[in-house]
Amino acid sequence: MPGLMQDWSLTCNRILDHAALQHPHREIVSRSIEGPIHRIAYRELRARALQLAKRLDAYGIREGDRAATLAWNTWRHMEAWYGIMGVGAIYHTVNPRLFPDQIAWIVNHAEDRLIMVDLNLLPIVEKIWSELRTVELVVVLTDAAHMPETSLPVVPYEDWLAEVDGDFAWKELDENAAAGMCYTSGTTGDPKGVVYSHRSNVLHAMAASLPDVLGLSSRDRVMPVVPLFHANGWSLAFSAPLNGSALVMPGARMDGEAIWELLDAEKVTLTAAVPTVWLMLLQYLEKTGKTLPWLERVLIGGSACPRAMTEKFETVYDVRVMHAWGMTEMSPLGTVCSLKPEVANLSGEALLDIQEKQGHAPFTVEMKITGDDGAPRQWDGATFGRLKVRGPGTARAYFKGDGGNILDGDGYFDTGDVAHIDEHGYMQITDRAKDVIKSGGEWISSIDLENIAVGHPAVAEAAVIGLPHPKWDERPLLVIVPRENATVTKEDILAFMHNKVARWWLPDDVAFVDEIPHTATGKIKKTALRAQFADFTFSG
Amino acid sequence: MPGLMQDWSLTCNRILDHAALQHPHREIVSRSIEGPIHRIAYRELRARALQLAKRLDAYGIREGDRAATLAWNTWRHMEAWYGIMGVGAIYHTVNPRLFPDQIAWIVNHAEDRLIMVDLNLLPIVEKIWSELRTVELVVVLTDAAHMPETSLPVVPYEDWLAEVDGDFAWKELDENAAAGMCYTSGTTGDPKGVVYSHRSNVLHAMAASLPDVLGLSSRDRVMPVVPLFHANGWSLAFSAPLNGSALVMPGARMDGEAIWELLDAEKVTLTAAVPTVWLMLLQYLEKTGKTLPWLERVLIGGSACPRAMTEKFETVYDVRVMHAWGMTEMSPLGTVCSLKPEVANLSGEALLDIQEKQGHAPFTVEMKITGDDGAPRQWDGATFGRLKVRGPGTARAYFKGDGGNILDGDGYFDTGDVAHIDEHGYMQITDRAKDVIKSGGEWISSIDLENIAVGHPAVAEAAVIGLPHPKWDERPLLVIVPRENATVTKEDILAFMHNKVARWWLPDDVAFVDEIPHTATGKIKKTALRAQFADFTFSG
Ligand SMILES: Nc1ncnc2c1ncn2[C@@H]1O[C@H](COP(=O)(O)OP(=O)(O)OP(=O)(O)O)[C@@H](O)[C@H]1O
Ligand SMILES: Nc1ncnc2c1ncn2[C@@H]1O[C@H](COP(=O)(O)OP(=O)(O)OP(=O)(O)O)[C@@H](O)[C@H]1O
Ligand SMILES: [Mg+2]
Ligand SMILES: [Mg+2]
Repeated sequence: MPGLMQDWSLTCNRILDHAALQHPHREIVSRSIEGPIHRIAYRELRARALQLAKRLDAYGIREGDRAATLAWNTWRHMEAWYGIMGVGAIYHTVNPRLFPDQIAWIVNHAEDRLIMVDLNLLPIVEKIWSELRTVELVVVLTDAAHMPETSLPVVPYEDWLAEVDGDFAWKELDENAAAGMCYTSGTTGDPKGVVYSHRSNVLHAMAASLPDVLGLSSRDRVMPVVPLFHANGWSLAFSAPLNGSALVMPGARMDGEAIWELLDAEKVTLTAAVPTVWLMLLQYLEKTGKTLPWLERVLIGGSACPRAMTEKFETVYDVRVMHAWGMTEMSPLGTVCSLKPEVANLSGEALLDIQEKQGHAPFTVEMKITGDDGAPRQWDGATFGRLKVRGPGTARAYFKGDGGNILDGDGYFDTGDVAHIDEHGYMQITDRAKDVIKSGGEWISSIDLENIAVGHPAVAEAAVIGLPHPKWDERPLLVIVPRENATVTKEDILAFMHNKVARWWLPDDVAFVDEIPHTATGKIKKTALRAQFADFTFSG
Repeated sequence: MPGLMQDWSLTCNRILDHAALQHPHREIVSRSIEGPIHRIAYRELRARALQLAKRLDAYGIREGDRAATLAWNTWRHMEAWYGIMGVGAIYHTVNPRLFPDQIAWIVNHAEDRLIMVDLNLLPIVEKIWSELRTVELVVVLTDAAHMPETSLPVVPYEDWLAEVDGDFAWKELDENAAAGMCYTSGTTGDPKGVVYSHRSNVLHAMAASLPDVLGLSSRDRVMPVVPLFHANGWSLAFSAPLNGSALVMPGARMDGEAIWELLDAEKVTLTAAVPTVWLMLLQYLEKTGKTLPWLERVLIGGSACPRAMTEKFETVYDVRVMHAWGMTEMSPLGTVCSLKPEVANLSGEALLDIQEKQGHAPFTVEMKITGDDGAPRQWDGATFGRLKVRGPGTARAYFKGDGGNILDGDGYFDTGDVAHIDEHGYMQITDRAKDVIKSGGEWISSIDLENIAVGHPAVAEAAVIGLPHPKWDERPLLVIVPRENATVTKEDILAFMHNKVARWWLPDDVAFVDEIPHTATGKIKKTALRAQFADFTFSG
């Protein structure tokens, strides 16, 4: 027997409709690529997104077509998303920090028909233009007055938009239709395309907004420093308007000073980015003596948030740290470390112990950890296993079937991460499955070893990889970038780590390097590191 | 092109699964019908709900079957809901405060196969038993030791449950399948059956949990004084476990003292009920000098929350009042009066002006107000019109097609309420469409007049109805129940109301009565009042 409730499809345009009607005057403040601070309200932004949808329709963009965006966080990038979705097409965010070759590969793989590109990123498109096989048109996100010289088939966004009026209705779509696309960052292999649906974006934004997740309200002023092209922009382009939160968009400038200026001038209450961004901000604050009087919460994810960073935010600047874990394949939020009543009254080191964890899964995210046999392992906060997830915001396949079947028999997606979960549901990532070191049938967490090593005052960065070992299968090698002007020996480091982990976890050797290879999103690239040390043999 | 995200149906069991996994030890505290306070955690409650589903399956309850519950708020009522849904059947909450004839009519109309009934409500079932045409079995929500003598085909819940183990899996259901059923309260006509789907319950619970709606977190301890049989229990049986909030269930005792005892002993942070309940609590507090040190928020809806009540909660007891509007047909939440940034800094009378409004619609609820021509009216906080709503939590039809087509051309449901909406989206109910007084082509709000009249110190209760008038079509009659021992005249009242409304709104006459008729949910029954005054003619 069917229920008798209304059909109301979960399409992304509903979110912007809601913001425009219920929060018409709430603003999106952006540092424009041209320079000045720009302000627009949700009602206007919706009108312009509708106008863009009409313009795309007039141009000939059809349902299911892909349109790339190569852009920083500004109001125009938001309009691009909603306009593209509004005509039934698919926004495809491309990371400008990738190598040009990778960008060309991704755009060709996605078969993007057009690229909407920021003024200062046009040179990238020029560089790869000859390689692009499907792109017909380049829309430069500026006006005619700011257009640079170029030989590409370009139009200036503002003037192109003005060729039509805004009298248009969102295309009516099935909620399961594709809405957006984002390639994984390529830390562990070739990038693969994740295809979000309207439904997954809407449900994910609702879950992400809940009080124990981001807790977004109309009184929040949210600054996504995390770019929209990183893992679906952490959903903030959906969850902020869904709750009528104001948005503050940093544009192309993400140095400590630029970030602080916006945090302060725009009275930002919640901001989000990867740890490296916060490192820059904290250095700026220390250097200048500035403070963060308005900021209430900072969301930190993408890679593990160092304990010292959490401590500094919490104790020096009185900002609540929300450690989070997610992936491109998960829309992207998987867990957020908010405080359940069991831990809400902790403080000091005990609280930091909790905040070091990546947190617990909100409604719509189901987790399990499994052993090599695929059987679930217990949630005791110590036993670790492969982390697998299920839910409406998680991928069931990659674009064009790349990677084949990615779900287990119960429909769970293997995250490629290794984690333990405690009895209250708090999950902690201990490693990537590809990076875990299998020594004599037991698992050693490379991340745990790295976290301890970076605690040594002479260590700037540390990475641990497993190398083949005749007796134990694999043993850990610790690779270290020393701090400038610091001198440190293998013996110093191992003595420092002694007693902080089980004796059999201790690295068999320590190598000193000038630099550790990173991905475009700032993560340690262990594949490259393993290649670099392919011929290494343990000394002792 | 379809998105490539997982199919994960929005069925209600997901909510309890989440609570059991992520909040296994969070408790549901109930005042049991047998007397003592009872405690159970979500993990156990889920196990018992699965056991009940298995028991119902063994008995022969099938997908789409209806099972009535005639019960107060306790853990067993929660188990009944989830157990019934878990086997694919439909929980049908019945209001024990209705006249027995109405209960029999509703149970027959729903074709319930069984009734799960509280110990102290069994006499109702006995009284109507001979009229019931479809009920086969009566499950008394107690154990064998507490079973009363009866001639009905009864089983004691606990012992019946114990006949099976808990090894069962939730039935796999389409998210659009019916999950629950609730009849409207019959204020304006015959009760009609609203049929919730799994999807509508889940989406509604997610929307209701958002920070600007109820803002439920795992740190909340929620007491639904509003019974589960009122308008889908205001969704709290879904939204509390969805967020891991603890639940405090008042059982059969809802007097001021009993409510205060639980609020205090169980450190309740959020509670919800109709204004009459809070009147009793406030009287108890005044009499005893008790306070509300733990309570943070009180949700008040079902009928308009008097300004004086809001003021008392806010200023005397430091409790935030959340005025809300909803209907059985809306799952039920339509609007909640939380504070957007435009009004967040108001205080005193200006804040009360906002809180007198029923609030703004969350994501998933779309509102419009229309004139007699069906065209939308502007949102200026003054122009009123028929309030119409659309969304996944709103009915598209009544059970068995009663009432015919209930949606307009754009898919909006006519609430039967009259309201205005301001530019920030705050809606205020000014009347029921059936009660609005049409005087010379203009509308007069009966509720506005009532609110002013009850401000007179000698008035205990007031109701305004429109009566036929030769010149103006209709004119208002004010009906008053004077306070005990108070003497008051028509002239006193009219002089008091003078200057508080437009002159042409002033009632043409005032009638004094001992009692005003009410529905089972405590609302003024204007149909009955109009019948009572059918032969009345205006004196002046
Ligand atoms: N808070 C965190 N702590 C530790 N690791 C994290 C955290 N947040 C995210 N990660 C890591 O980032 C991964 C998701 O990143 P993303 O989807 O951007 O691509 P990637 O996994 O780095 O690249 P690829 O999948 O192409 O190898 C997670 O699987 C996890 O390994
Ligand atoms: N905060 C409020 N202020 C004023 N009226 C309210 C409020 N909340 C609810 N109501 C009224 O209650 C109605 C919904 O109540 P409910 O669904 O319980 O049944 P009913 O409308 O009273 O009965 P029936 O539909 O059978 O006539 C709304 O349509 C509205 O008229
Ligand atoms: Mg990955
Ligand atoms: Mg009604």
